[in-house]
Amino acid sequence: MDAASQAGPGEPVVALPSVADSRLARQLAFILEIDKLKSVLRRSHLADGSRAENDAEHSWHLAMMAVLLGEYAEEEVDTGRVLRMLLVHDLVEIYAGDTFVYDTTAIAEQEARERAAADRLFPQLPRDQAVQLRSLWEEFEARRTPDARFARALDRLQPLILNYATGGGSWLAHGVRAEDVLAHQRVVSEGSQALWEYITHLVGDAVRRGYLAA
Amino acid sequence: MDAASQAGPGEPVVALPSVADSRLARQLAFILEIDKLKSVLRRSHLADGSRAENDAEHSWHLAMMAVLLGEYAEEEVDTGRVLRMLLVHDLVEIYAGDTFVYDTTAIAEQEARERAAADRLFPQLPRDQAVQLRSLWEEFEARRTPDARFARALDRLQPLILNYATGGGSWLAHGVRAEDVLAHQRVVSEGSQALWEYITHLVGDAVRRGYLAA
Repeated sequence: MDAASQAGPGEPVVALPSVADSRLARQLAFILEIDKLKSVLRRSHLADGSRAENDAEHSWHLAMMAVLLGEYAEEEVDTGRVLRMLLVHDLVEIYAGDTFVYDTTAIAEQEARERAAADRLFPQLPRDQAVQLRSLWEEFEARRTPDARFARALDRLQPLILNYATGGGSWLAHGVRAEDVLAHQRVVSEGSQALWEYITHLVGDAVRRGYLAA
Repeated sequence: MDAASQAGPGEPVVALPSVADSRLARQLAFILEIDKLKSVLRRSHLADGSRAENDAEHSWHLAMMAVLLGEYAEEEVDTGRVLRMLLVHDLVEIYAGDTFVYDTTAIAEQEARERAAADRLFPQLPRDQAVQLRSLWEEFEARRTPDARFARALDRLQPLILNYATGGGSWLAHGVRAEDVLAHQRVVSEGSQALWEYITHLVGDAVRRGYLAA
């Protein structure tokens, strides 16, 4: 296979110039590599319904939610850590792709695919930063700390808001039902009781308005 | 003008359901409003050259750079504050639009447009958070603190990396020259001497390769 056919969609047109400082060179190459997160599409659509959202935009939106909604965290959280976790939490999807939460077959294989992606992605960084970012990702996935539980709650709430704002969006397109949504959203209560209550209210309202099947 | 013709591109299809807690309602309405940042297009293209980057992706990318490049900050910075500043710094462009840095006419009017946008945007939040976010934005704009100088350095470096990675991208499209780039990038040295040195190296290399006019 020649170089041109190896270059999939999302590859930079050219690599960055080499620099004497190999640590800085690795960091900048990683920063360029993660540009690909902007091309990983999600099922959620923008609130105006114009197009699918991508993982980079989603991650920014979650980070803004962490800045604004910290007061509703169930336990005390370190907002700086929550921000870092949210910025990093979807990076593995650069290689593993986005998995639709209601696709049970894909979900079963998701963990293995994402671990393989993490093994490929994070070692591109200098060792200390590879360890730091992988550890934030593992913490987010394990949901055993207050920071991770709150971060996960925001990650669940955000597409719900977009689905509602688009008048049912990917719920109607994929035949998702209220009970599926509530089962999937249930973990939000571990991170924020107040946001979980808001979600049950929003889901009830979505059913009444026909944005979501009962 | 009826409601339908007032709704510009980017308006949510439907508003979020009302909730009894008016503070939470304002916060969530703001979170939905800033979804529009995903539709503010910049001149820079993604590294694979596929399309223009938007402000939300750009903000996420800068935040990742702050996580990874903090060690190069000229003065000690509070990464948590730098992150918040970067997440927020382009929000005013939801109403003011993106201003191309080499468009001198637009740049002259930019400050007034962005102040008007800030007056419209931030008061949509509860008062304490409106003050907090506006103050972060003002600090970024004024560039008088170490956090702001470093944040600004990253904001300058990021499109440079994308322009190089696309083999000249918006430089060639808009007839930008090396001296313009270096004049615009000069402020990076206030935030990070190491990153400024990298920039001069990258610009020299871009000229040699024909990505940028001498």
